[in-house]
Amino acid sequence: MGNAGTKSWKAIAAAKKADQLSKIPKEWLITDPPADDVLNVMTVPETCGLLTSKELEITGVKDAVVLLDKVAKGEWSAVDVTSAFYKRAIIAHQVTNCLTEIFVDKALSWAESLDKQFKETGKPVGPLHGLPISLKDQICIEGMDTVMGYVSWVNKPAKQNAVLVDVLLAAGAVPFVRTNVPQTLMFPETYNVVFGRTVNPYNRSLTPGGSSGGEGALIALGGSLMGVGSDIGGSVRIPAGMCGLYGLRPSYNRIPYQGAMNSSLGQESIASVLGPLCASASGLRVFTKAVLDGEPWMHDPVCIRKPWDESEYQLKKHGGGKNMCFGIMWDDGVVKPHPPVLRALKMAKAALLAAGHTVIDWVPPVSHSVLRAHAMAIFYADGGENFYDDCVPTKEPLLKSMAPDAPPAEQLDMPFGAKPMNKGGTVPEPLKPLSAYELWKIQWKLRALRKDYLDGWMATTAKTSTGRPIDGLITPVAPYAAPPLGKYTYSYYTSFCNTLDYPASVFPVTVVDPALDVPQPPHQFRYPEDQIAYNLYTSPDVYKDAPVNLQLVGQKLEEEGVIGLTEVVVAALQDHAESTSQ
Amino acid sequence: MGNAGTKSWKAIAAAKKADQLSKIPKEWLITDPPADDVLNVMTVPETCGLLTSKELEITGVKDAVVLLDKVAKGEWSAVDVTSAFYKRAIIAHQVTNCLTEIFVDKALSWAESLDKQFKETGKPVGPLHGLPISLKDQICIEGMDTVMGYVSWVNKPAKQNAVLVDVLLAAGAVPFVRTNVPQTLMFPETYNVVFGRTVNPYNRSLTPGGSSGGEGALIALGGSLMGVGSDIGGSVRIPAGMCGLYGLRPSYNRIPYQGAMNSSLGQESIASVLGPLCASASGLRVFTKAVLDGEPWMHDPVCIRKPWDESEYQLKKHGGGKNMCFGIMWDDGVVKPHPPVLRALKMAKAALLAAGHTVIDWVPPVSHSVLRAHAMAIFYADGGENFYDDCVPTKEPLLKSMAPDAPPAEQLDMPFGAKPMNKGGTVPEPLKPLSAYELWKIQWKLRALRKDYLDGWMATTAKTSTGRPIDGLITPVAPYAAPPLGKYTYSYYTSFCNTLDYPASVFPVTVVDPALDVPQPPHQFRYPEDQIAYNLYTSPDVYKDAPVNLQLVGQKLEEEGVIGLTEVVVAALQDHAESTSQ
Repeated sequence: MGNAGTKSWKAIAAAKKADQLSKIPKEWLITDPPADDVLNVMTVPETCGLLTSKELEITGVKDAVVLLDKVAKGEWSAVDVTSAFYKRAIIAHQVTNCLTEIFVDKALSWAESLDKQFKETGKPVGPLHGLPISLKDQICIEGMDTVMGYVSWVNKPAKQNAVLVDVLLAAGAVPFVRTNVPQTLMFPETYNVVFGRTVNPYNRSLTPGGSSGGEGALIALGGSLMGVGSDIGGSVRIPAGMCGLYGLRPSYNRIPYQGAMNSSLGQESIASVLGPLCASASGLRVFTKAVLDGEPWMHDPVCIRKPWDESEYQLKKHGGGKNMCFGIMWDDGVVKPHPPVLRALKMAKAALLAAGHTVIDWVPPVSHSVLRAHAMAIFYADGGENFYDDCVPTKEPLLKSMAPDAPPAEQLDMPFGAKPMNKGGTVPEPLKPLSAYELWKIQWKLRALRKDYLDGWMATTAKTSTGRPIDGLITPVAPYAAPPLGKYTYSYYTSFCNTLDYPASVFPVTVVDPALDVPQPPHQFRYPEDQIAYNLYTSPDVYKDAPVNLQLVGQKLEEEGVIGLTEVVVAALQDHAESTSQ
Repeated sequence: MGNAGTKSWKAIAAAKKADQLSKIPKEWLITDPPADDVLNVMTVPETCGLLTSKELEITGVKDAVVLLDKVAKGEWSAVDVTSAFYKRAIIAHQVTNCLTEIFVDKALSWAESLDKQFKETGKPVGPLHGLPISLKDQICIEGMDTVMGYVSWVNKPAKQNAVLVDVLLAAGAVPFVRTNVPQTLMFPETYNVVFGRTVNPYNRSLTPGGSSGGEGALIALGGSLMGVGSDIGGSVRIPAGMCGLYGLRPSYNRIPYQGAMNSSLGQESIASVLGPLCASASGLRVFTKAVLDGEPWMHDPVCIRKPWDESEYQLKKHGGGKNMCFGIMWDDGVVKPHPPVLRALKMAKAALLAAGHTVIDWVPPVSHSVLRAHAMAIFYADGGENFYDDCVPTKEPLLKSMAPDAPPAEQLDMPFGAKPMNKGGTVPEPLKPLSAYELWKIQWKLRALRKDYLDGWMATTAKTSTGRPIDGLITPVAPYAAPPLGKYTYSYYTSFCNTLDYPASVFPVTVVDPALDVPQPPHQFRYPEDQIAYNLYTSPDVYKDAPVNLQLVGQKLEEEGVIGLTEVVVAALQDHAESTSQ
């Protein structure tokens, strides 16, 4: 079933893309799609005329709890819900190119089976009964390709489901589409030579983020209300943040990864994790609790045996959620955030103060530039050879950038190591393969940095007046709202959480407002990345309609606490917006 | 404070050993020590005349719960208890060479402080109030050397306590001695050129095991009732097993390692863990619960935030501890156990059946030889260079074997890589340094093997008739009871748990009985190691008085369950011994 040596990579990619199109029911094709220069396509699902009023009602639900309740009461069947979201997902795909695998029949047959069991027993199969869930194109489903952006992975169907897929199915969920990613997964945008580029539905000249960018675009358009991405440097939080959604990066091995594919397999020191992107805050809890209730450690050998802890979610360790103290990181010391992001931070501070909490400034106790250098050394300890190995079979180009106007990508026509590899803006220095011993030494240094960071967090106890360290840390998701395609190159506002293994959520706060978010005079640039980012905000109009999210960071393996804290912050923002608009 | 270039390694070692002797109060020296040919020295503490009857009473307590109760009631002070155990520890040292750092004044000052607080408040400082705890010579105490078997580490006092030391102190424990280890820590015996060799107090021609062998000898002689070792391949369980004690290997990062030293720093894939060795089964629970109640994740950045789970300890997931089904591994498929070990397994089976449980045979679902090859490749991915780096500063010999009659150890007089390194019996093949990418590939393969093993465990559900997979797995600790010095070369009966990250306890079952445990005719040897082990049991008399322990294995991060199951098995063995002796 492999592709090596038989067809050119372009032919394989074109055939796969044609096959994808053939899986779309003809009647779901938009007859009058928006022109390419229509940037905001957020209303297309409502205006394209393909969705019935019931389908619009179903897919208009953003809150997973509401949807699950409707199905559990028998108001809507699993088939009703799955078909409605499927149709809307296909519409979303036609305006953002967000999907990879399309499998209408399989999804509907799962939904039918759920309806049958519901009819027989009168009760839901599990806590996610009838909920369609979209999956990033690395979470394997038996019999289906997992292309993950590599031509050489086309036509290699998975032998079995990822453990998470089995857990979701057992909980009554309906996996129904798979979503687009960048080649290698190591970019914060979404482009590969098989499925092409995914764009942001709020403004198609902007990136939806990545690497789970297909999820971001899909859920923003209501084509799904819950999806699963992966996150090794922000790949759940960046697309959730760029698309105005809720997202969670759990700690290493809290959610089962077994059976999902990835690049840099066996790189365990800064582990990729799976996590949800959701249209509502409640989705983070619903997803996480349902997966943990499925006891995934029975089937994933490295998954952490730690059941859902309701008392942590109730914030028992955080004063019951009252009179808490949050840290705010206004600047990570490397790249200064753009005006809309700083305004979002101010909004969060005002909302938290109004809700009776206190706020202190957070200055990183360890340089994020130093942390980042260690993370990069670990990510690319193989010198990028694993990326090369996945491109060599078909000689597809190894992408050096996500920019549409990037110079021709590197052709893999010579052995690894024959010429230096550099991923351009993403990786600051030429990649140098390390020995195992060199890698150990870097891992050991990183552990010391993690200790220093933790000690710095604990030392805030002296400043909070709660008797505890800060209850949570509020930070930007990125220095920018969704930047123009190919321009997202600094991802350490999310990535530091992966380096430290701190769980983190993102949540929407505002949208770019050209009137309020005026460009500022240049500051003293600390790093080249700082200047590059500054130069991206000369005209706010470029960011028209772009959502602005923030991030909430907790301590390692404190997923329940982070979810609970996120709900507090979101409620505070909402209450404050209402009170100030009156 | 370093030693490089100033004195010969022999001079540094001799000075350190002389300094150690000077720390022993003169009145605690045994005036008439047993001759070298006295093998069993277990009664020396009682017969040497140094301990008062009260000191004998105090140190006669094996159960931590009993001791803690006496101190909490004010019957014995912390100073009473600490001095009694200190004195007995020094006696144990004189007949087994089990100690490294000796710090009587510091320990007594901690004990005095506890007594003062007790007097002031009328209540214990914490759950371990007044309990002396011995520590392996890698668990740093501020201001004190952590030699860990390397000459080059002499005279380099620690700048701060290991996190575990702080947690134990906060719980009211009294760290009071540090205990001997082998150079590199990567041997299942205990010898280094600084402090010399530790022997087994049951029979001084036998090894006490290792690498926490100082703990094993010390606790067996009543010089401590609870100690902390580390375990990356069995280093807690092997000495506990060879010395007739209880021991626990917790899962990766359950107990805080931060601030303890180790070799192969930064090797995170098969992580070393800290765990207790105890004179009674109850000690495993007392230690683990107290440490977790101290919330070590507040101070160790990789420690798992998972509080003590009382319901897991109560075996709620194991039928409440009734009518369970255990697997028994009679043979790991690589090295056949000696007759006394097989007899212990039969005793356990009979006891479990008599207690109403069922038992099924366990055949490893993944070849332990294959697992072991992956573990070895990871352990020595640096080709042993880190060992070399620790020997180079003083040119001390890098040990290739623990055998007293081993050929001269390798002199470090040429650069690393100039000649191949081989640790002889411990490592089956010459060590070959790997690239980071090669290491990742091995780690990825190992993950697949871990998945297969887990699936095999879960598949036992079809055979147990409990509706669950096996509740626990009973295995040998080793193919032998404590073998003669230098002969312990096959440690995979314990090490497979490290490879898989399964928590495991060891517990005493019987002692070698030359009448019952007669040598058997040769079987078909599967591997060279199998024949080597067989040849070690030509005369049972060699193993005179040697304890025989077994191991109980649970699932990843199921420490509480393993402790609860161990108590069930130990009680079953005791009940069965009583009923069959009546």
